[in-house]
Amino acid sequence: VTLIDGRPGESIPVTDRGLNYGDGLFETVRLHEGEAPLLARHLQRLRAGCQRLGLPYPGDATLEADVRALLSDGPENGVLRLVLTRGDGGRGYAPPPGAHPRRILSVHPLPDQPGEGLRVGVCRTRIGRSPALAGLKHLGRLEQVIAAGEIVRQGWDEGLMLDESDLVIEGSRHNLFYLRDGQLLTPPLPAAGVAGVMRALLLEVMPQAGLSGGEATLRYHELHEIESMFLCNAVVGIRPVKALADRPLAPVAVLPQLRAALVEAGARWVA
Amino acid sequence: VTLIDGRPGESIPVTDRGLNYGDGLFETVRLHEGEAPLLARHLQRLRAGCQRLGLPYPGDATLEADVRALLSDGPENGVLRLVLTRGDGGRGYAPPPGAHPRRILSVHPLPDQPGEGLRVGVCRTRIGRSPALAGLKHLGRLEQVIAAGEIVRQGWDEGLMLDESDLVIEGSRHNLFYLRDGQLLTPPLPAAGVAGVMRALLLEVMPQAGLSGGEATLRYHELHEIESMFLCNAVVGIRPVKALADRPLAPVAVLPQLRAALVEAGARWVA
Repeated sequence: VTLIDGRPGESIPVTDRGLNYGDGLFETVRLHEGEAPLLARHLQRLRAGCQRLGLPYPGDATLEADVRALLSDGPENGVLRLVLTRGDGGRGYAPPPGAHPRRILSVHPLPDQPGEGLRVGVCRTRIGRSPALAGLKHLGRLEQVIAAGEIVRQGWDEGLMLDESDLVIEGSRHNLFYLRDGQLLTPPLPAAGVAGVMRALLLEVMPQAGLSGGEATLRYHELHEIESMFLCNAVVGIRPVKALADRPLAPVAVLPQLRAALVEAGARWVA
Repeated sequence: VTLIDGRPGESIPVTDRGLNYGDGLFETVRLHEGEAPLLARHLQRLRAGCQRLGLPYPGDATLEADVRALLSDGPENGVLRLVLTRGDGGRGYAPPPGAHPRRILSVHPLPDQPGEGLRVGVCRTRIGRSPALAGLKHLGRLEQVIAAGEIVRQGWDEGLMLDESDLVIEGSRHNLFYLRDGQLLTPPLPAAGVAGVMRALLLEVMPQAGLSGGEATLRYHELHEIESMFLCNAVVGIRPVKALADRPLAPVAVLPQLRAALVEAGARWVA
């Protein structure tokens, strides 16, 4: 089922600026037992992204109504994709004054869950550095598309992406946490990457799980110093990495505490 | 008039990967007196881009037939936008095997031509560095959208975009040539920018115009050393810059020779 501006639909005008310029944002929301437990956090991030782009935010009430309509008629569990484009706008990059954003919401099955522990490689495809777009989940995912092709060819479960300067940024579809010297760390994202909802939640609940840490840069040549690592996103929660480029990693000992803290914060499906 | 996969149409499925991931390329082709004089060069670039992205190229014959169909029914002069997406592909970044690309061709009026000479500023919006995408005219133009908003607010005709390291890359919708020590130069684009069809043609015909030069990096702090500058793209041809951030620039003395060489090479409308 797909809702376009609140009404069932399957197509959009070719003049949509999301298509023509990647002029829009999206959220990927976990649906669990007929609810969208982290929806408020997704909408908060979407609103912040709209402010950065000068894109009119449709308002929580409108988007919540869209989600309710989809949930009333859809599967209990799955993935909600919420796309917001700047609407129609002809030719030319300049955002048209009085743009009327377009909302596209669709529900998809949960992705396959590989067994306990991911086998992860390091992509040759570099992630770009763009301070103007860093952190945003915008519609231009072509680097991730190229990386995903590489990951499929290599037979990995996921691949880490480095920027030009050999900083480890994230996976192609997950953020990344790692343990070093007893601290739980994740790369800062001032110039590249998506600031994920699950990443933010983990940074927030870390103390409740008895962990200290935060943001810390990670370079390619430091990867061999890492004891253990996990990937995360708002659909799958936490996924431990069991092997990084053929090197086995230690299990993430604090996983039960972290999952408990996430459940406490609303991410009930990660239990 | 819009042709989608060769047939008149106004909408595309919401599952299109161009919309959802920016997974596609486009060309902006000048239509002049009922013809598309540089079409062969545009198709050559499109084919090369498809090879980089593993996107099946529809073939010259198919695209030429699309263009002929549009020209037979459209205005004599204008702008043809040719979008090629990876077609439909559900959720997930990995390019689906056997993807069937979608062709979207539309005709638009020529943009307003400001009088002789552009007033150009330097954008605060930085252009990203992405070796994976550099040179490609891909669908993710969100940095240019942000820059275009800045250019409108500032009242400039166009803005130059720098990368993070203060390299001058291009304008928001033009490539850039500058004259220094009698040489005609343009920034190399190994990590950022669009390698434009008009830029390539100018590099090619430069000797016929009696000019030497080529690619040479240009840093922000070197802008004050430049005698004169022009911008170019395949729609407008050459546009001299008369003022750069309030500093008047000298006229581009070699403009008549360059325009004559471009006309000779097929870009007849720049005369």
